[in-house]
Amino acid sequence: MTYCEAVIRLDQRPWREVRAAGERGAVAVLPVGSQEQHSEHLPMGTDTLLVEAVVDAAAGLLGDDGPELVRLPALPFGHSPHHLFAAAVSLSATTLLAVLDDALDSLVRSGFRRVLLVNGHAGNDEVVRLAVKRCAERTDVALGACSYWTLAGPGEPPQSPGHAGWFETSLLLAVHPDLVRAAAPWREPDPPALFHRSPAPGLVVARHGEWERVGGATDDAGDADAETGRSLLAARAGVLAAAIRAFDEATAGSHGPAAPR
Amino acid sequence: MTYCEAVIRLDQRPWREVRAAGERGAVAVLPVGSQEQHSEHLPMGTDTLLVEAVVDAAAGLLGDDGPELVRLPALPFGHSPHHLFAAAVSLSATTLLAVLDDALDSLVRSGFRRVLLVNGHAGNDEVVRLAVKRCAERTDVALGACSYWTLAGPGEPPQSPGHAGWFETSLLLAVHPDLVRAAAPWREPDPPALFHRSPAPGLVVARHGEWERVGGATDDAGDADAETGRSLLAARAGVLAAAIRAFDEATAGSHGPAAPR
Amino acid sequence: MTYCEAVIRLDQRPWREVRAAGERGAVAVLPVGSQEQHSEHLPMGTDTLLVEAVVDAAAGLLGDDGPELVRLPALPFGHSPHHLFAAAVSLSATTLLAVLDDALDSLVRSGFRRVLLVNGHAGNDEVVRLAVKRCAERTDVALGACSYWTLAGPGEPPQSPGHAGWFETSLLLAVHPDLVRAAAPWREPDPPALFHRSPAPGLVVARHGEWERVGGATDDAGDADAETGRSLLAARAGVLAAAIRAFDEATAGSHGPAAPR
Amino acid sequence: MTYCEAVIRLDQRPWREVRAAGERGAVAVLPVGSQEQHSEHLPMGTDTLLVEAVVDAAAGLLGDDGPELVRLPALPFGHSPHHLFAAAVSLSATTLLAVLDDALDSLVRSGFRRVLLVNGHAGNDEVVRLAVKRCAERTDVALGACSYWTLAGPGEPPQSPGHAGWFETSLLLAVHPDLVRAAAPWREPDPPALFHRSPAPGLVVARHGEWERVGGATDDAGDADAETGRSLLAARAGVLAAAIRAFDEATAGSHGPAAPR
Amino acid sequence: MTYCEAVIRLDQRPWREVRAAGERGAVAVLPVGSQEQHSEHLPMGTDTLLVEAVVDAAAGLLGDDGPELVRLPALPFGHSPHHLFAAAVSLSATTLLAVLDDALDSLVRSGFRRVLLVNGHAGNDEVVRLAVKRCAERTDVALGACSYWTLAGPGEPPQSPGHAGWFETSLLLAVHPDLVRAAAPWREPDPPALFHRSPAPGLVVARHGEWERVGGATDDAGDADAETGRSLLAARAGVLAAAIRAFDEATAGSHGPAAPR
Amino acid sequence: MTYCEAVIRLDQRPWREVRAAGERGAVAVLPVGSQEQHSEHLPMGTDTLLVEAVVDAAAGLLGDDGPELVRLPALPFGHSPHHLFAAAVSLSATTLLAVLDDALDSLVRSGFRRVLLVNGHAGNDEVVRLAVKRCAERTDVALGACSYWTLAGPGEPPQSPGHAGWFETSLLLAVHPDLVRAAAPWREPDPPALFHRSPAPGLVVARHGEWERVGGATDDAGDADAETGRSLLAARAGVLAAAIRAFDEATAGSHGPAAPR
Repeated sequence: MTYCEAVIRLDQRPWREVRAAGERGAVAVLPVGSQEQHSEHLPMGTDTLLVEAVVDAAAGLLGDDGPELVRLPALPFGHSPHHLFAAAVSLSATTLLAVLDDALDSLVRSGFRRVLLVNGHAGNDEVVRLAVKRCAERTDVALGACSYWTLAGPGEPPQSPGHAGWFETSLLLAVHPDLVRAAAPWREPDPPALFHRSPAPGLVVARHGEWERVGGATDDAGDADAETGRSLLAARAGVLAAAIRAFDEATAGSHGPAAPR
Repeated sequence: MTYCEAVIRLDQRPWREVRAAGERGAVAVLPVGSQEQHSEHLPMGTDTLLVEAVVDAAAGLLGDDGPELVRLPALPFGHSPHHLFAAAVSLSATTLLAVLDDALDSLVRSGFRRVLLVNGHAGNDEVVRLAVKRCAERTDVALGACSYWTLAGPGEPPQSPGHAGWFETSLLLAVHPDLVRAAAPWREPDPPALFHRSPAPGLVVARHGEWERVGGATDDAGDADAETGRSLLAARAGVLAAAIRAFDEATAGSHGPAAPR
Repeated sequence: MTYCEAVIRLDQRPWREVRAAGERGAVAVLPVGSQEQHSEHLPMGTDTLLVEAVVDAAAGLLGDDGPELVRLPALPFGHSPHHLFAAAVSLSATTLLAVLDDALDSLVRSGFRRVLLVNGHAGNDEVVRLAVKRCAERTDVALGACSYWTLAGPGEPPQSPGHAGWFETSLLLAVHPDLVRAAAPWREPDPPALFHRSPAPGLVVARHGEWERVGGATDDAGDADAETGRSLLAARAGVLAAAIRAFDEATAGSHGPAAPR
Repeated sequence: MTYCEAVIRLDQRPWREVRAAGERGAVAVLPVGSQEQHSEHLPMGTDTLLVEAVVDAAAGLLGDDGPELVRLPALPFGHSPHHLFAAAVSLSATTLLAVLDDALDSLVRSGFRRVLLVNGHAGNDEVVRLAVKRCAERTDVALGACSYWTLAGPGEPPQSPGHAGWFETSLLLAVHPDLVRAAAPWREPDPPALFHRSPAPGLVVARHGEWERVGGATDDAGDADAETGRSLLAARAGVLAAAIRAFDEATAGSHGPAAPR
Repeated sequence: MTYCEAVIRLDQRPWREVRAAGERGAVAVLPVGSQEQHSEHLPMGTDTLLVEAVVDAAAGLLGDDGPELVRLPALPFGHSPHHLFAAAVSLSATTLLAVLDDALDSLVRSGFRRVLLVNGHAGNDEVVRLAVKRCAERTDVALGACSYWTLAGPGEPPQSPGHAGWFETSLLLAVHPDLVRAAAPWREPDPPALFHRSPAPGLVVARHGEWERVGGATDDAGDADAETGRSLLAARAGVLAAAIRAFDEATAGSHGPAAPR
Repeated sequence: MTYCEAVIRLDQRPWREVRAAGERGAVAVLPVGSQEQHSEHLPMGTDTLLVEAVVDAAAGLLGDDGPELVRLPALPFGHSPHHLFAAAVSLSATTLLAVLDDALDSLVRSGFRRVLLVNGHAGNDEVVRLAVKRCAERTDVALGACSYWTLAGPGEPPQSPGHAGWFETSLLLAVHPDLVRAAAPWREPDPPALFHRSPAPGLVVARHGEWERVGGATDDAGDADAETGRSLLAARAGVLAAAIRAFDEATAGSHGPAAPR
């Protein structure tokens, strides 16, 4: 996998280049992460590190013949109240929604007509969706939202990432092996975590103290390895790249003249 | 299908009966609906009417040997900004979240330790989930949230209800046939609605004006009929009843002594 | 008393009929209720049930030669923090105000230029008034607000409804006798409830714990009977019908062309 | 009428004297005013000036044998959006409510257990009432709220003050004659102002632009005179003094030990 | 020092005179104060009394040949949570910001294009600055903000006012000697107050309980005297007058035609 | 200058290590940045990049014998409404305050008793200060806030960084020369920018459109060079390191037992 030099990092470019890209119809991409406990062995920034890795790998796959992308710095803090029992830096749902509202309105005012939020933390999922839906009501834009594991592609179904288990540990071993400690032994909680294995498929269940009861991870990280992680990353980057391309094609008519300055 | 006389309607009972039920461990059930355009032929209250019908049918199926239920009056207004282009009575996402926060806190203070939100409008989905997750962080309770079509049961998968098409029209023909007008002819929009058929599976896409562009319905109501509706209702009630029973069993330990008055 | 078939129930009609009525100048009517303790014998939904009964009876009296009305489903939850000591499902004042703001803005966007809020719970009174005053500043509409007992008519003064006593019990015996239990004996609290019998006429007094101290009712329900209730209902419906007619006449010039869609 | 030297002005005393008074059971009194157009002849601060005059005169009548009072500086800004068409310095309803919430919480934290809000502007009425009711739910205190014209006493009924007409002009001629200009001729608007003469007694009506249509005053100031103003002031001060005394007696048991510092 | 009769007191003038001044380009001046403990000897309203004195003295110095000023009544309550340990009537930062936002928007709607906030309490400093910056983004106006001791003039540097010490006691002895009690003996706290003498110049330090630990004053009031106070007042009024004149000259082009009514 | 390997990056460590550090009394350090126009030649993330560089350099200077530090990922978005005329990703002041409130509360709940906010964007200054002051009222902690240029040390005064001129350009040439474009010629605006050169020292002036009028930079970047930048960075890092050490010593008693989990 080669990373694309051509991707525009919003924080690394002067404003005229950023604004010009928006006015040409570039898609702004905002990764949304978290800082929260990830069991004994993964760092608190795992979600942020992984969503950045997937976004950058997807941009690399798209390369120069894909849609023009402007990649924002990741929001490193998300909605993690359920991890405060251990340690987290968490925004409330209303604060996170306000942050995304403000960021999207700013991008629109700066000339963008198409924005994607790519999320790396399950706890952000509802807020990220609300943000794009609200913004599309306020102003004439097209927006997309996904969590990097919810996308399905040919030959690669959506993933259930769990938390601090096999999936995330494998991915982090692939992209930041130096940050991974040895995983503690894991035992299936009895009964299983209500938030992870709902007693009724399709029913979201939230019980006070449940994350603490089950020890902060959803499955065993013992089987994780870097090779699997590289494979997972390639697959996730592939479906995200495909989704970006599809979003670009479906909303190509959305980038009319930018708002008057 | 027979309706259970024993279900406790919160609005129809004196407070001591309601409070005693909560303290005994009864599950409070709050249906959440909407008032919004449902094409030319369905009434604006469709989502509210249907979620009430499914909840009451599920309660009937559970009968006297199921978990004790206290059914609240449905919240008749939901989050429908995307239907204001035609007509809707819509709460903003933050208003709806405040309503649900207040209602859940009230139920907890009134002695309930278990609450289910059953949603009837896709636009409420994120807010309903956020509300139960937030509440479970604030206080020692167990909560569940679902949209009545997202539950899967044995022999009955989750449904994609669409909006004002075959699914909802069939259901309403089953429960309130007098409120259904003749459906207008429907044409598949070209391109299809981005919010309904995402260009990338798993990517939520929101584009300004998209609901108006496609005419306010997602699929053809022409094939709907009451018999199908009765079958859909029975199936939805069945999986909801099973979910309530499973929630009851999984959270049976959650109803300790009620909060001190 | 006959009920008018012609009244338009917003939740039971397709959006085009609702919108067309608004654009013709119909008056939207939103009943606002509560769920809260009503002593040992009345159901928690008393205020909602009664305001719906009065509104529907008034609509019946107006019949086909009165102003066109579009009746919304009642908001079943109100501002009842003072009843949480027993049981209530209460919205905070700011949440209730947000709900009414959103509902009024929605109606305006859907084409209405005239709206009435008819309130059934004393605790909602200030918020209901604020909502109509605020809305009339934001947009070019005419609005009215009342609690169903505050209207005075020829031969019928305003009523002091109290709470869970003679007035409400009589009314509920008239409209939902099946929901009324035997009233517990009532004793005049000593000293009387500060919120009910102010030590200084015109001074609103609020003291912590006062509702609990006096037992949750303001007067004796022992004398209540259904015949009195029918008479009270007829009178309240009569003055509300007259008020609606007067509002219609006074604001007839307010329904200009609807807002552009 | 002599003014009482003994009244404690919160802004003019060191904190220990203020706090000690609160802990002894003194009643804190907060006048709430406005800055808004009062026709051609009265100053924008009329409501603030008058409520201060009435409060200080009532305190003078009570003298040293009345309940101990701690008088706060008046809040000079109120809720006046309906006067912004001409000129006003107006707080939104939610801002005013936040100010009163914060002020009441501060007083409670500073040791007060009894507080009175005395209002001078009709537009503040709902918010002032909400503030005392909310505070009494949050904490163990007794509070009262009135507008200075709504109190009724023996031989003196409540007043309908109108706006910038006979009542307010007479009062201001009594207390600040130097601030009164010659009143412009006044003509009864046709139809009369909906907010002042409701088409249905007991129905609050708000119509966009109504204050501007009727010219900003409710009745003729031409008959106002200082002698009448002095008489009105004496009467209003008398009923307020009586109300304060009655509030003191009715809530005497409310001043337990102050909150721990 | 003579006070200028020509200064327009917003609360003492009819609205047309106020509005006309704004439309002519007058500068509106809003003093912002507080009610909070000021040690044993100064009244709770010290900051409000002093900022009013400085503003009025500056207006007097400017006289009739200075820029036209419209002086609002001072906001008597500020952001003083750090003084609630003793006694204060404090608005939260968000409440105070809402008050200032609303006041500034009102002034703009009433025709003003230039506004100055003059602050008398250090705890308000950040909010006052935010308010003017926010308002200048929302609308086409020019605004200024200062605390009366932060201005520097020729021959007179900015002052570090401390709290309830030499500076404020001297000033209050000059303007309201009747409100000053004998100061209690003062001892330098060891270690010194972190908020007053930062361990690192330029670092703002806030520690819980620090104000209570050091006794509520920052320095010794024992050396204060009225003569010094008169000198400080004259100097502060002089630099404020100069700042107003400079603001007027720098923003003279900002008062275009007023907003349409 | 050597960078300290021992500094704990919160995002790169498992939660137990982070929590243990907080409980041992480590100082959490949160850099706060922005994304906003920085003239033609500097990238939008300049403030974030520079505050990170200064913080990391200071940590390096402190090394292993300084106070233990836990460095959070920088908040990459700040309060930049005044730069939206060109391009920015800006949070409103209330959103930014909510973010910082939530982050500080999270850190406290995770066991920290000492936190420093180090700011890199002048527009954040008021909010950063408010956040630490508010937090110290809510809970028993010690906090500090600075902008990296406001600290003064021996032999190095505070700096006036300007915007996109000599100071910032020199610094960025030192730390990220690859991100610096050639600066456009700069002309002193006439009159000078009101926000940069106040007409009255100590008066904050905000005028609509002023940033656009002066072209988005405050001074000439033409003289900037990397050598100067290295010297500025060393000096800024030195005074920040000294400030951290002084904060540590002054608040050493603040890290009592951590909050119960």
